Amino acid sequence: MSSKYKALKEECFEANIELNDLGLVIYTFGNVSAVDRDHGVFAIKPSGVPYEKLKPEDIVVLDYENNIVEGTMRPSSDTKTHAFLYKNWNHIGGIAHTHATYSVAWAQAQKDIPIFGTTHADHLTVDIPCAEPMNDSLIEGNYEHNTGIQIIDCFKERGLYPEEVEMILIGNHGPFAWGKTAAKAVYNSKVLETVAQMAYLTLQINPNATRLKDALIKKHYERKHGKNAYYGQ
Amino acid sequence: MSSKYKALKEECFEANIELNDLGLVIYTFGNVSAVDRDHGVFAIKPSGVPYEKLKPEDIVVLDYENNIVEGTMRPSSDTKTHAFLYKNWNHIGGIAHTHATYSVAWAQAQKDIPIFGTTHADHLTVDIPCAEPMNDSLIEGNYEHNTGIQIIDCFKERGLYPEEVEMILIGNHGPFAWGKTAAKAVYNSKVLETVAQMAYLTLQINPNATRLKDALIKKHYERKHGKNAYYGQ
Amino acid sequence: MSSKYKALKEECFEANIELNDLGLVIYTFGNVSAVDRDHGVFAIKPSGVPYEKLKPEDIVVLDYENNIVEGTMRPSSDTKTHAFLYKNWNHIGGIAHTHATYSVAWAQAQKDIPIFGTTHADHLTVDIPCAEPMNDSLIEGNYEHNTGIQIIDCFKERGLYPEEVEMILIGNHGPFAWGKTAAKAVYNSKVLETVAQMAYLTLQINPNATRLKDALIKKHYERKHGKNAYYGQ
Amino acid sequence: MSSKYKALKEECFEANIELNDLGLVIYTFGNVSAVDRDHGVFAIKPSGVPYEKLKPEDIVVLDYENNIVEGTMRPSSDTKTHAFLYKNWNHIGGIAHTHATYSVAWAQAQKDIPIFGTTHADHLTVDIPCAEPMNDSLIEGNYEHNTGIQIIDCFKERGLYPEEVEMILIGNHGPFAWGKTAAKAVYNSKVLETVAQMAYLTLQINPNATRLKDALIKKHYERKHGKNAYYGQ
Repeated sequence: MSSKYKALKEECFEANIELNDLGLVIYTFGNVSAVDRDHGVFAIKPSGVPYEKLKPEDIVVLDYENNIVEGTMRPSSDTKTHAFLYKNWNHIGGIAHTHATYSVAWAQAQKDIPIFGTTHADHLTVDIPCAEPMNDSLIEGNYEHNTGIQIIDCFKERGLYPEEVEMILIGNHGPFAWGKTAAKAVYNSKVLETVAQMAYLTLQINPNATRLKDALIKKHYERKHGKNAYYGQ
Repeated sequence: MSSKYKALKEECFEANIELNDLGLVIYTFGNVSAVDRDHGVFAIKPSGVPYEKLKPEDIVVLDYENNIVEGTMRPSSDTKTHAFLYKNWNHIGGIAHTHATYSVAWAQAQKDIPIFGTTHADHLTVDIPCAEPMNDSLIEGNYEHNTGIQIIDCFKERGLYPEEVEMILIGNHGPFAWGKTAAKAVYNSKVLETVAQMAYLTLQINPNATRLKDALIKKHYERKHGKNAYYGQ
Repeated sequence: MSSKYKALKEECFEANIELNDLGLVIYTFGNVSAVDRDHGVFAIKPSGVPYEKLKPEDIVVLDYENNIVEGTMRPSSDTKTHAFLYKNWNHIGGIAHTHATYSVAWAQAQKDIPIFGTTHADHLTVDIPCAEPMNDSLIEGNYEHNTGIQIIDCFKERGLYPEEVEMILIGNHGPFAWGKTAAKAVYNSKVLETVAQMAYLTLQINPNATRLKDALIKKHYERKHGKNAYYGQ
Repeated sequence: MSSKYKALKEECFEANIELNDLGLVIYTFGNVSAVDRDHGVFAIKPSGVPYEKLKPEDIVVLDYENNIVEGTMRPSSDTKTHAFLYKNWNHIGGIAHTHATYSVAWAQAQKDIPIFGTTHADHLTVDIPCAEPMNDSLIEGNYEHNTGIQIIDCFKERGLYPEEVEMILIGNHGPFAWGKTAAKAVYNSKVLETVAQMAYLTLQINPNATRLKDALIKKHYERKHGKNAYYGQ
C-alpha cells in the first residue's frame, strides 16, 4: 500500500544520500529532514543506520510534537531539535546536521567564522554564528529539544533572521543548516564546510586578516539574493 | 541548424568540465570562457548552472561589449570581467575564474604568493600578485566591469605583462587565470591552486622561508619558456 | 578441505580490506585481527602482504602464546602485541593497528588528544591517551610483546578500562584500537583518525580551546552507551 | 620489430603510471626511470607528455652519457640527473622525481625532515636530508647534470649511503627517490610524501616535538632491514 508521504520520504532520502556523497559525514554522523507544511509533518533519517544501507522506506515521519506518524524505525537522536525548529520557524523546508571536519573544528574552538571573502558573502552577510555551549541544567533536561531553543535564542540575541542566515555552529558540537528544501539545507552544509576551511587557512596565512569590507558584502549578497539579483537563470 | 560558433562553444564547454574534474569548483563557483578573435566574440558558461547538468548548447556567446550574439541563457555573472580582459589584452585566448580553496585563502589573506620554489618558477618568475580590494565607489558602480579594470591596473602598477604572468588573485575574492586557450587557462588555475598550497605549507614549516634565488628562477623559467627551451616535445 | 576457522579468517579478511577502503593505511602499514574465544585463537593479517593481493586463505591463525595454528604465511610483525592484549583483556573481540596520518601526528607529538567536542564524547569520555615511548631495555627485549605490556600498563596507571576506552596512541609510533569485533576495531580506528584531525584543527584555530564540559561529555556518552541509550535501532 | 629493451620500457612505463595513480604528480610534474645494468642503459619518461596519454613505446632509452639509444621523443628534462646517479651509484635500479605537495613544502622550507616516529624509522634511520640550493655558477652551467652532483655531494658530506637512505630533498625544488627497482623508487616517493605530511603535522601540534629515541630507530629499522629481519614473507 502506498504512503501519502512517499514523495516527502523520497526527498528526505535523496538529501541524506547527497550529504554522504558530498563527503560531509562518516558512518552515521549526520541527518537530514524535510518538512510537509500542508500535513504538519516532517520526514527524518532513522537513528544509527549507515548511509549505504539506507532505503527510502526506512525514513521516519513525525509531527512537530515528535509523535511518529509513519515508520517502524527509531528516528534520529537529534529529531527533537528538528521538530522544534520546524515548529518555530515556519518558512524553513529542510534541516541538515553534520559533524563535517572544518565546521566542527570552528565549533570546538567556540569561534564565529569571520566573513573574509566573497564566497562567504555570496551566501550570508554576517559572520557564521557559533552558539555558546548549553547550561548544565538544560543539558541534563530535554537535551535535543533544548538544542532547538539554543539555536533560536542565539538568533534572537544577535538579531539574526533564519531566512537570511541559514546556518549555525553549536559550540563544542557542530553545524546545523537549513533552507527552503532539504536539498538546500544540504547545499548550505557544504557551503559552510567550504567557507570554514577557507577561513581557517586565511588565518593561518595572515593572523591579522581583516573582514570583508561592507560594500563588497552588500554587492555580493545583493547580486545573488537582492531585488535586482542577476545571478542564475 | 548548426551554429558557426559550435567549435568555440565546444572548447568552452570542455574547459568548464575540466575545471570541475580537477576539483577546482563546487556547485557553480567558477566559470571559463574561450575567445574567437576572428569573429570578435567569446563563449562563456551560463550563470548558476551546475556542472553535471551543463551541455555544450547552453554556452552563451557574446561580443566584447557584452551583447549576446548566440544563446538563450543568461551568461555568467562575471561575464563583464571576461569581456573587459579580452578587449584589452589581445593575445589571450581563454579565461578561468574559480573559488578554489588555497587560492581563495591567499586572496582573503590579501597576500601575494611568494615564489618559494621551482614549481612556481616553471610557470612565472614573480610572486603571484594579489590585487587590493576595490574602492567602494567602483564596487557600487559597474562591479564586474570594474573587476577587469582592477586586474589590468594592478598589472600596470607592478609592471607585469599578461603574456608572462597568467594569473592573479583579487583581494578577498579569488583567482583569475588566463592563457592562449581556455584549456591553458584551466591548467593555470590548477597550477595556481597547487603553488598556493605549497607556499602555505612552506610558511607553516618555516615562517622565515626565503624566496627562490634569481639564478634558479631564471633557469627554470627559461628551460620551459626561453628561446632555448628544452622542455616538452 | 574446509578449515574450522573459515568464518574467523573471513571476518579478519573483511576487516583488513575495510581498513584499506577507509583510507587508513597505505601499502602494508596496518593490520587487523579477530579472535575466536571458544577456541582460544585469533586470526591476523600476514606480514608485508599488500591489501590488493590479500586473500582470505592468507590469514594466519595463532593461539595466545603466538603459536601458529593454521596458515602457511608469516603473521604480522605486530602479532605479539595482539596476542598479549587478547590474553589479558578477555572481553575484546578485534584489534586494529594503523599508521593513519593524524593519529600518528599526535603520537609523534607525544600528546593526549583532548576531548574538545561531542564527536569525541559520543565514543569515549576522556582524552585519548598517548602512552610514553618504551624504556630502552624493553625495546631491545621482546619489543612487540612489550608493546602489549605498555598499552595495558598505561591503562592501569590512568585508571582506564578497555571496555570504555577502545583506543590508544603509542608515543612516536601510532594508534591501536579494539572493540567487540574486528569490524568495531576498524570503526574505532576511523573515529580516532577523524577526532585527531578535528582536535588538531581546533587548536590551530584557537590555541586556548577548552575541553568539553562534563555535563556534555556525560550526556553524549550516555545517550549512545548508557543504560537508557536512545541512539541507534 | 620487437625492441630488446621492451621489458625495461614496460617497467619504466608501469612505474610512471603508478606515480600518477598514487596522487604524487599533476600534469607532467614528475618522471621515473629504470636501469638495465647488463646493457648499460636506462629508460625514462619523455618530456612534457601527460600521464593519461603516455604509452610504453614513448619511453626513451639512453646510455649513462645521455645518448639516446632508442626512442623518437625527447627524454625528460631531468634526464641528466638520472644518468649521473646511475653512473655513480652502481647498485640503484630505479629513480623517481616528483613535485608532491608536502615533500616540496619541506624542500621550499629548506629543512631536513626530522625522524619523529616509527613510520620514518621503518625506512631509514636518519633525518631525510635537504640539500642546499646550488651555487649560481652551477645553475648557469649544466644544471641537470649538476643536480646529480649536488645529490651525491650532499650524501658524501653527511656520510650517508644511498643503499640505506633512498631519498633526498633538493632545496627549493623537490624530492628524488631511488631503489633497487623503478617500482621501489616510486614506493619510496610515496613513503617520503607520507612521512613529510606526518612530520609537518607533528610540529604543528607540538613545536617542541623530539626526535625518535635511538633504541626505537634501531629496533624498527632492524626488524625490517636487519640481519634478523622478521617483517614480510
